[in-house]
Amino acid sequence: MPFKLIKKSSQSSSRLGQLITLHGRIDTPFFMPIATKGAVKTLSANDLGILKSQIVLANTYHLWQRPGLNVIKKAGGLHKFMNWSGPILTDSGGYQVFSLARSRKIIENGVQFTSDIDGQKHLLTPQKAIEIQRVLGSDIIMSLDECTPYPCTKKYAKESLKLTTRWAKQGLEYYHVKKIKGQLIFGIIQGSVYPDLRQQSMSELTSLNFDGYALGGLAVGEPPSKMYQVLKSITPLMPAGKPRYLMGVGKPEQIVEAVKKGIDMFDCVIPTRNARHGLLYIMKNKKLKGKFYQELRIKKSVFTGDIRPLDSRCHCQTCQNYSRAYLRHLFMVNDPLGLRLATIHNLSFYLNLMKTVRQAIKTGIL
Amino acid sequence: MPFKLIKKSSQSSSRLGQLITLHGRIDTPFFMPIATKGAVKTLSANDLGILKSQIVLANTYHLWQRPGLNVIKKAGGLHKFMNWSGPILTDSGGYQVFSLARSRKIIENGVQFTSDIDGQKHLLTPQKAIEIQRVLGSDIIMSLDECTPYPCTKKYAKESLKLTTRWAKQGLEYYHVKKIKGQLIFGIIQGSVYPDLRQQSMSELTSLNFDGYALGGLAVGEPPSKMYQVLKSITPLMPAGKPRYLMGVGKPEQIVEAVKKGIDMFDCVIPTRNARHGLLYIMKNKKLKGKFYQELRIKKSVFTGDIRPLDSRCHCQTCQNYSRAYLRHLFMVNDPLGLRLATIHNLSFYLNLMKTVRQAIKTGIL
Repeated sequence: MPFKLIKKSSQSSSRLGQLITLHGRIDTPFFMPIATKGAVKTLSANDLGILKSQIVLANTYHLWQRPGLNVIKKAGGLHKFMNWSGPILTDSGGYQVFSLARSRKIIENGVQFTSDIDGQKHLLTPQKAIEIQRVLGSDIIMSLDECTPYPCTKKYAKESLKLTTRWAKQGLEYYHVKKIKGQLIFGIIQGSVYPDLRQQSMSELTSLNFDGYALGGLAVGEPPSKMYQVLKSITPLMPAGKPRYLMGVGKPEQIVEAVKKGIDMFDCVIPTRNARHGLLYIMKNKKLKGKFYQELRIKKSVFTGDIRPLDSRCHCQTCQNYSRAYLRHLFMVNDPLGLRLATIHNLSFYLNLMKTVRQAIKTGIL
Repeated sequence: MPFKLIKKSSQSSSRLGQLITLHGRIDTPFFMPIATKGAVKTLSANDLGILKSQIVLANTYHLWQRPGLNVIKKAGGLHKFMNWSGPILTDSGGYQVFSLARSRKIIENGVQFTSDIDGQKHLLTPQKAIEIQRVLGSDIIMSLDECTPYPCTKKYAKESLKLTTRWAKQGLEYYHVKKIKGQLIFGIIQGSVYPDLRQQSMSELTSLNFDGYALGGLAVGEPPSKMYQVLKSITPLMPAGKPRYLMGVGKPEQIVEAVKKGIDMFDCVIPTRNARHGLLYIMKNKKLKGKFYQELRIKKSVFTGDIRPLDSRCHCQTCQNYSRAYLRHLFMVNDPLGLRLATIHNLSFYLNLMKTVRQAIKTGIL
């Protein structure tokens, strides 16, 4: 079994565990920095190593389109291409086809679209999504799904989740026919904000026996309270022995809340994208109560002469070596070094948040 | 004496030496990466350390305007501000006032200009230029000069060099009055492409007894042959016991040629700016004969699937960890990591070129 449950909290649904992948063991709950196109923007693999990132997330659609599978195959897989020796999870590409490609259209056997890169027509089938991820060498492969938007009628959500189930089955069949070994495969539960549809989707997918289950179609614009309701209704019914992945979440307090509702895995652009916009996170309260962190907008003029580190208790390369004044200066003069130093700090914040979360579960305070 | 001449070549005017600064000893001839605004664009001080850069060059005008002297003073000087513990040379700001500021006007006691940052009127005097560099904590302070453009009439060049001499004298007086210790101060020889004017400027400046002498007003658009003529006529007359700095030069073959004509110090945006445009340097012939290097435009489609390092014999972080295909991919998807990896490689090329040059002088082949 790739997932080992180590502890269940007595005061919430939070869990401590380990996930074994081809490229190493990951302590859960964990957060995955986003390396959409084969790099966490501005960071080298060495930077990620110094940050002790346990895993990164890359994108099937983007890498398939550019540089293309032939290049990555020639490089010996995505790990070698990007010089990253830790685990990689790849999403299926479905979400990106919808958000980025032109004239996309769902048909029974996949998604037709016109690429924004080469202008050519492509068809992403459930089998193709698995095949691409097989070639990339992903440690965790995601099934092709339709990510429903918010709001979404119940009728549409129901039809859509059934399509996602059919695709999940077809993809898994391909995975078994190709005798893919070691690379884990996860199914994606849909059903929008409707608890009964979420349960239907989950029970259809769990009968297929994936290595883990993701919750998709959340964090797509719905109020957080709706998301928490879905989590509350669905996680108690999810298999306890399999990892649970809440896709695209989220803000620090949302991650803590979702952990308390039984989630083990997260990914989000927030720390890295916000870093590039000069929005930085400072930990205030390691007990994770209330508003336990502070947001700092480094471009504000108040930081012009502030020679303190971003966070004097932070051990990241940025806080150990540079002041707020220097970081602000780099942003004001548009030096990409500023983006990198900010990204390093925010990822350090998120990765340490997860460490704090794991410690809190271990000591029984979460 | 801060400069120690170790060897003079028997077959050219090239020299081997050491320059002692407050922040360390520098082997000459050497190249200074450009950290205009307090950072070599895209690189951290740690990156510069890994590259074994002996020194960096920062800009008086830019740092004065932004973040301003108060901030740098508060940080404890430019070294602490940018977290760089090696030597720093700062140019005087004169060149930038001319090329960047609005409504600039030379008057007898300095340059009046409207700042492109705050829209305010400022006056940069010879004394002010020294004072700014004193506060920055520069290891090598440059005198305020007027950098004449190319072409330039002999009449203008003559009047201008006399002004540069008056400014040099005033700046040096300020330096002595302020009892500045340890920070070296260099004079800048002007005189455009006129050998007699260059000699006049040099003899006026050497009588003032600076720690070193720069040749300014070259590499401003004149044909390289004209620049070499000036070097050939002037370097034999320059004091042998003082370092000689050719400002703003240049291409690899120009640096080698200038070393052979007796120059010890160089700075240029070429390696870093070209890196950011995807133009990379590959060493072909360590004997430095003929076209001893190759230029590689990484964005060309021929590199799409080229999984070799940029230069298999290069020891830089980029060549040790990444392929041409990955670097091209980063450029195609506009990831700033590409700019950083390219900058690291090109600076490694330039710094190793200087190492090769020093070795060639040592072994008597240059």
